[in-house]
Order: sequence, then structure tokens, then C-alpha cells
Amino acid sequence: MFYIVGLGLCDEKDITVRGLEAVKGSSRVYLEAYTSILMVQKERLEVFYGKELILADRDMVETESDDILRNANTEDVAFLVVGDPYGATTHTDIVLRARALNIPTRIIHNASIMNAVGACGLQLYNFGQTVSLVFFTETWKPGSFYDRIKENADLGMHTLVLLDIKVKEQSEENLARGRKIYEPPRYMSIPQAISQLTEIESLRQTGILSPESTLAIALSRVGGGLDERIVAGTLAELLAQPPEVYGDPLHSLVVVGKRLHHLEVEYAEQFAVNRKTWRDVARRMYGCALE
Amino acid sequence: MFYIVGLGLCDEKDITVRGLEAVKGSSRVYLEAYTSILMVQKERLEVFYGKELILADRDMVETESDDILRNANTEDVAFLVVGDPYGATTHTDIVLRARALNIPTRIIHNASIMNAVGACGLQLYNFGQTVSLVFFTETWKPGSFYDRIKENADLGMHTLVLLDIKVKEQSEENLARGRKIYEPPRYMSIPQAISQLTEIESLRQTGILSPESTLAIALSRVGGGLDERIVAGTLAELLAQPPEVYGDPLHSLVVVGKRLHHLEVEYAEQFAVNRKTWRDVARRMYGCALE
Repeated sequence: MFYIVGLGLCDEKDITVRGLEAVKGSSRVYLEAYTSILMVQKERLEVFYGKELILADRDMVETESDDILRNANTEDVAFLVVGDPYGATTHTDIVLRARALNIPTRIIHNASIMNAVGACGLQLYNFGQTVSLVFFTETWKPGSFYDRIKENADLGMHTLVLLDIKVKEQSEENLARGRKIYEPPRYMSIPQAISQLTEIESLRQTGILSPESTLAIALSRVGGGLDERIVAGTLAELLAQPPEVYGDPLHSLVVVGKRLHHLEVEYAEQFAVNRKTWRDVARRMYGCALE
Repeated sequence: MFYIVGLGLCDEKDITVRGLEAVKGSSRVYLEAYTSILMVQKERLEVFYGKELILADRDMVETESDDILRNANTEDVAFLVVGDPYGATTHTDIVLRARALNIPTRIIHNASIMNAVGACGLQLYNFGQTVSLVFFTETWKPGSFYDRIKENADLGMHTLVLLDIKVKEQSEENLARGRKIYEPPRYMSIPQAISQLTEIESLRQTGILSPESTLAIALSRVGGGLDERIVAGTLAELLAQPPEVYGDPLHSLVVVGKRLHHLEVEYAEQFAVNRKTWRDVARRMYGCALE
């Protein structure tokens, strides 16, 4: 059996009991190491599982999937991913490959940012499509994410914006020369994300994002752990916070849609930079009936 | 500490290791018994946890929340919910009440249908807002769900449709007379959901739902367990399947949006009632570039 096991969001104890059984019973255990990051180190997972983990980077999953799947029809092999197995396309690739090889596969689900974002107090059914925001460069500032936020905003929906991470990236020079030398990992921060959002807004000027009158909620290390941070405010307020307010990566950002319900406002108020502004903007700009 | 623990989707082993620790360390453990159902009985959970569970129905959570929270600032109390704690509004109510009482609260996340729906092969970021479909009665056929599906469809987004369940409902007569006598539980089936969708379509005639040219994917007991069923086809094909194809509840339905990607078609093809129709409709009606 080939198991794809979601690890959840926080640390080694977020694995499910079923997932832990699969890990303990597997002859080889891979840890997917590029679409996301867990908040703990590989070594800590190994101690907890009592198993050695084989790090599987993008190269390996794309070019050596048959090696990962080797003998999985006669023994158990586990492939661990942060969050839920269906968070990234690449996991469906390896499932399709397993199927082509007639290897039975079982998915073990877990929490991912796609549902744990509910921790911010906004209702999941009020979210539209999820958007990824990539690092801008001097010459490449793709604005398609903005079109998607606008589509959601036009319907009054909230948007979950997933912030880019760069893990095991090569510089252009190293890539061109075929040198497997990698840049240090980079994680987009909340202020950087807001800067990019407002940069595109100032080009497009459709008015969906306004520093003073658009509400947003920043989430860091969401998952119920002790270093979870949730911070709510206007875009301007969130931009002005010092970096330590958001703690360590990963960070995500929710752009609040106009269908905002007063119960959502009241629940999220606990996370507000400034409760008065939060309620005031919700009332004036979002039309929420608050006392 | 007041723990709200997500149980995941399938059975007793879908709890996380952290969640299990919280349950074992709690002096009282409540099982929320109305917004969803787990696929196993309370007794099986009790044996697995080594704890007695107190069933908490809607009445109890709404009117006796202080009793549930009693002493939770000096001892640990756990409140178990199927899926993830942020799936239903009512869980935020009890968190707010705990906060008002100065009781520390911790959320333990898990998979829910909102992210496990990825198992059908459609990408989560291509989903728009989620929709709930309630049982129609002779006199009450609310069509607001249709407007939401249309909003998603106009953007090309997929829609996850959550099908109604009626647990511990009272008949009008029993309600009027204040008799706490409850109807047997009812769960909406896939064919019933499709009938309701097409009923509203025939009234509105906007053309977003067509028996022969709208693709959909039915999910039953999604969660990676042995009785998980995923069935893909046109609305007409899914309507025509005998009930046993879908297995036991809970059922959910995904209405496929026009931004469908050919990799999504190829992944979901394994679930198709008829692979030829599936590919054919994807090619002709959704414009997917398939071989």
C-alpha cells in the first residue's frame, strides 16, 4: 500500500492516529519538503515516529517517483505531506503514477490552511476562490491574483491569499550552469504581501483594495499551536505593524469581502490591531449592523 | 483548558495525536451530535478513548453552554466535533462564551469536507463559495443556493454543495405542543439533490445546470476510508444511478465549473460512471484540451 499522509499544520502531534499507524508500519517513509513547511524539524518527527525519514524534494518527486513507489504493492510505503495531501497538484501526479503501476493507494486526510483559515472567525462558506501570491521581481509582477480577488470581491466573498515560499530555488546563474546550489529559503511576509496588493491596485485602480477601508486578517502558523498569530485590521494597519507581530512563517492573508456578517466581525474583533477601527470600518464600509 | 477537538471525517482513528491526548486528559468529554455525523457509533469512540462521552445536542450547546464549560479554567474539558471545529457557526458561539468567562480555549484542527473534497481530483483553489442545499418541502423551495452556484459558474468555479441532514428534528405538531419527540434522522441523497437542482433550473432557466452537459462529482463518506465513494458524470448520469452506488450518507456534490483543467478531468476520470461521456462532455462543453 502507498499511503499519502497529511501531517496537519503545526507539529509532530498533528498527525492522525491512522496516519501514525501507517508511518510505523511502513518500510520507507518520505517527507515531502517543498510545497510547504511544517513548524518542526525533520529530526523531531523522526524521534516521534521512531523512523528515519527520507527527504523528498521537487526533483525527486518529479523524476524519481518510481523509486519512491518501489515495492509498494508488496510492502507499505508512506509519503508525508504538510497539511492535507490534496493541497498541491504534485500529489495527484504521484497518485496517478501509482495507479498506472497498479499500486493500491490510500489517502489519510488532515487539516490544511484551506479549512483551518476558519480560525480567523470568518465563515468558510463565505470564501471565494483561493489565490496564490508570488514574489514580484523587478521585471515580473504578475497581476492575475488581483483579477481573482476582484472576482471574489465583486461577489462580496472573502479571499484567502497564500503567500509565496521559495525553498530550494536556484539562482538564474546556477540554473543556467546546471549547478545544484540553492538559495536560502524565503517566505513572503504580511507587509510584503500587502505592498504587492496595493502596488497592483494603484495600477488597476478598480477600488477593491483600499489601505484605510479594506479589512484583512493576517494568519501566521495557524493550527492552534502556541505560536499561532492572527491579526486583523485595515490594510494600512497591518502594513504598519512591526515584523515580530506576525512571528515566523508561514503567513497567509485574508482579504475580507463585503458580505461580511456582524457575527464574523464580532468574533474576529479579538484579533484586531485596533478594535475601534475594526468595528468602525466594518460598520461604515461593509454595512455591518453593529451596536 | 477548554479544548475543541476536530475528529476528522471517517472513524475513531482520524483524531490527531494531540486531540487524543486532550481527550484522555479531560475530566469531561462532550460529543457534538447535530451538525454532522461521524461514520462510527459513540460506543466505539468510547472504547477507543477509554472515556465516557456526553452527547451534546443543539439544545444543550445553545442553552447549557455554561454547564459544558463548568470548571474548564481549573480542569480540562473537551468538546468533540466531526470534521474541523470551524465548520459550523455554533462552535464559534461556545468559544465566544468561553472567552467571556475567561476560560482558556484551544482548537485542535482536523480534516473537513471543505478540504477533503480535493479527493475528487478537482483543485481546491478552483472552488468558489460553498453552498448548502436544504430539503425542499411542498411549500418551501428556497432557491438562494442556485444564485450562489450561478455566481460560481459565471466565474468558471466549481461549487461544493453540502447536502442537508435532519437530525433530532421535531414535527410541527410536536414542536407546537412542546413535546420533545424527534423524527428519525434524514440525509439528503445525491439523486434527491440533483432533482432539487434541476427543479430550480427549470424555473430559472439560466442554463447553468443541464442534465446532459453539466458535469458533477458525488462524494460519499469522503475521508479515505473503505466506504468512501466518489462518482463522476453528467447530472443525468448521476441521477440515474441506483442508490447503492452512493453508499451510506453523508453525501456531498460538486458542480464542476468551466475553468476545468484537463489534469482535473484526467484525475477524476477514474471515478466516472462512463469514461467516454466524461471526457466527451469535458471536451465539448468545457473546452478541455484532451487527447
